[in-house]
Amino acid sequence: MNVLVINAGSSSLKYQLFDMDKSVVLAKGLCERIGIDGRLKHSPAGKDSYIAELPMKTHADAIKYVIDALVDKDHGVVKSLKEIDAVGHRVLHGGAKFHESVLIDEKVLEAIEECIPLGPLHNPANLTGIRSCAEVLGKDFPQVAVFDTAFHQSMPKKAFLYAIPYRYYTDYKIRRYGFHGTSHRYVSSRAAKLLGKPNGEGLKIITCHLGNGSSIAAVKNGECIDTSMGLTPLEGLPMGTRSGSIDPAIIESIANYEGKTAQQIVNMLNKESGMLGISGKSSDFRDLIAEGEKGDERCKIAVEIFIYAVRKYIGAYAAAMEGVDAVVFTGGVGENDKQFREAMCAGLDYMGISIDIEKNNNAKRGTELDISKDNSRAKILVIPTDEEMVIAQDTAEILQKK
Amino acid sequence: MNVLVINAGSSSLKYQLFDMDKSVVLAKGLCERIGIDGRLKHSPAGKDSYIAELPMKTHADAIKYVIDALVDKDHGVVKSLKEIDAVGHRVLHGGAKFHESVLIDEKVLEAIEECIPLGPLHNPANLTGIRSCAEVLGKDFPQVAVFDTAFHQSMPKKAFLYAIPYRYYTDYKIRRYGFHGTSHRYVSSRAAKLLGKPNGEGLKIITCHLGNGSSIAAVKNGECIDTSMGLTPLEGLPMGTRSGSIDPAIIESIANYEGKTAQQIVNMLNKESGMLGISGKSSDFRDLIAEGEKGDERCKIAVEIFIYAVRKYIGAYAAAMEGVDAVVFTGGVGENDKQFREAMCAGLDYMGISIDIEKNNNAKRGTELDISKDNSRAKILVIPTDEEMVIAQDTAEILQKK
Repeated sequence: MNVLVINAGSSSLKYQLFDMDKSVVLAKGLCERIGIDGRLKHSPAGKDSYIAELPMKTHADAIKYVIDALVDKDHGVVKSLKEIDAVGHRVLHGGAKFHESVLIDEKVLEAIEECIPLGPLHNPANLTGIRSCAEVLGKDFPQVAVFDTAFHQSMPKKAFLYAIPYRYYTDYKIRRYGFHGTSHRYVSSRAAKLLGKPNGEGLKIITCHLGNGSSIAAVKNGECIDTSMGLTPLEGLPMGTRSGSIDPAIIESIANYEGKTAQQIVNMLNKESGMLGISGKSSDFRDLIAEGEKGDERCKIAVEIFIYAVRKYIGAYAAAMEGVDAVVFTGGVGENDKQFREAMCAGLDYMGISIDIEKNNNAKRGTELDISKDNSRAKILVIPTDEEMVIAQDTAEILQKK
Repeated sequence: MNVLVINAGSSSLKYQLFDMDKSVVLAKGLCERIGIDGRLKHSPAGKDSYIAELPMKTHADAIKYVIDALVDKDHGVVKSLKEIDAVGHRVLHGGAKFHESVLIDEKVLEAIEECIPLGPLHNPANLTGIRSCAEVLGKDFPQVAVFDTAFHQSMPKKAFLYAIPYRYYTDYKIRRYGFHGTSHRYVSSRAAKLLGKPNGEGLKIITCHLGNGSSIAAVKNGECIDTSMGLTPLEGLPMGTRSGSIDPAIIESIANYEGKTAQQIVNMLNKESGMLGISGKSSDFRDLIAEGEKGDERCKIAVEIFIYAVRKYIGAYAAAMEGVDAVVFTGGVGENDKQFREAMCAGLDYMGISIDIEKNNNAKRGTELDISKDNSRAKILVIPTDEEMVIAQDTAEILQKK
């Protein structure tokens, strides 16, 4: 079975075609500048990548070019459209409606539409992606929606309710939703398998998805019971350009000082804050480390703030679960940065988390690894995540059940 | 030595007169409705309390009535003003200027004034209190300022900087300050004495000041290294009417839904949120417990949210300090509510915190107590706080050094 995975943005569209029988990527690529002019970057496995300027007025145009590229006689990877069995879509916000991936029908489309106020930037783009596929591939072509929020729907009320007037929850559905759910689900489930309890029963796992966007989740008995992102991906850890949690009164303070609106300030908290805001130089951890080593104090402190915040979440979620059996690192930073992992776990032996410096230093990129000391009560695991692969797997599973 | 402690609000003024040689309160009381009409509630120790309607146009009028009451032939507790040696003032915000209590002079007054943008509600009232005392008692009468923020000035940058553009820190001094410092200092220092290391060296203490306003601090080697309140007292734990930390994007969301300004929303987060907001009934924990026992689900969940947040901070601050030697409970709720203490410590044995249910149940109000199991690696202590007494002690100490 071949599954096309699509992540549609407002003027872009990422795709990957998976051969699920062999668990390999046949091709991947990106359409950019949709609605402006249009450009396709196509990378077929084992063949040369290329870039083509192509007129893309709509997402449907983009999808057509993607299909053309996939079935192209020279650059293609399948012979015809018949060899593509389904499309899996990444959808940002499923609100409280979706706790798992679903086959898309009219009702699902309506429900995703109802979640637009919760995901005003992403959900409309995701919907456009789905509708464009239906336009190009036909209304009955199987499409599946995989939600970033779904895994976190198991959180109890004490974790998802904010301490604000209750009517904001009932009237506007303002509550914690959490994001990166596909990744947290995948790596916590992999960790459970590695720990010999594949359904997660009896396990307390803290999953740290650390990249340009970062979030942490507490997974108990295979279910998410808390996570650091909230109503939106702004809450929680400081990130590349996002502030993470701050004193909410700072927004009033800045409004008073600079005469800005709440909307302008939250935009600044999303796009000009975090590592970029503190350092004034970069949102990229590699830059921050390089500049820090050259003596840039603000780059150094930005990294320290990030690591310190991760440590505090690990401590908090262990307390939330009454202990911890495994800490999992994933995402660009979590998978690849051994110095970060060492600093995040240092001195946590008091709660049974002991990192093995040597194992951590010798960690090979892209492989699953236990980097805890042999006598560590909790395991420390590095598990590469692959959200596109999980979307493809969900899609394939749902199709098989159909 | 007798010290008058004053806590001046915008239209009120609380006072207590301490005999520092005997460590007793000679009298206490409250002036209300200053600038409106004026009312004095005076409670001399060992004599009858009374309420008097008295015209108070200004805080200076109020101070005069307080002095009159203290030296009154019938209701008074001292013979003349000469028996009052100094005044100690509670001052909310000392910014980054004050890391300890100080004798007030012109420079100190200026510095407190410079902190008004950080404490716009309280600092002006505190200043009025100080100036009114100088007016009534004379410019050279010794007055001491004790800051709510001072104890937290030892926090490192990684704990006090927010992940927002750095210029907000340099231009407007937006950073974490923390509050309840007098209480955290007092109970952490008492805990250190009880643990046999009076200067706190080598100790990791988590102090939980839980009342209508609540905050938690991490105290390492006698110094505060982190605390839950931030630029303002809004951040951190959910409180009686304060939301505590939320996704900052909620402010934008509410602004969009209801057309409110940042100022209006932050006001709502301070005054209509927290326990009151969730329950819709009360900000008082006793009410919430009573209603919860009668079956009110929102009152129950409000209490659960509060307890859950405290547990997570205990876990986070243990991780911040690489362990914990003592958890201290203080404040109205921390001192008096054994069910809360039990729920906050339950299941933390994995990190060496084991509560002794029986000791906790038998805890006598108003006394210092160890409620941990004999084999608990960390002590769990109940230590009644007395911020006014600490202000009086600071004042007496500074006067003696003069």
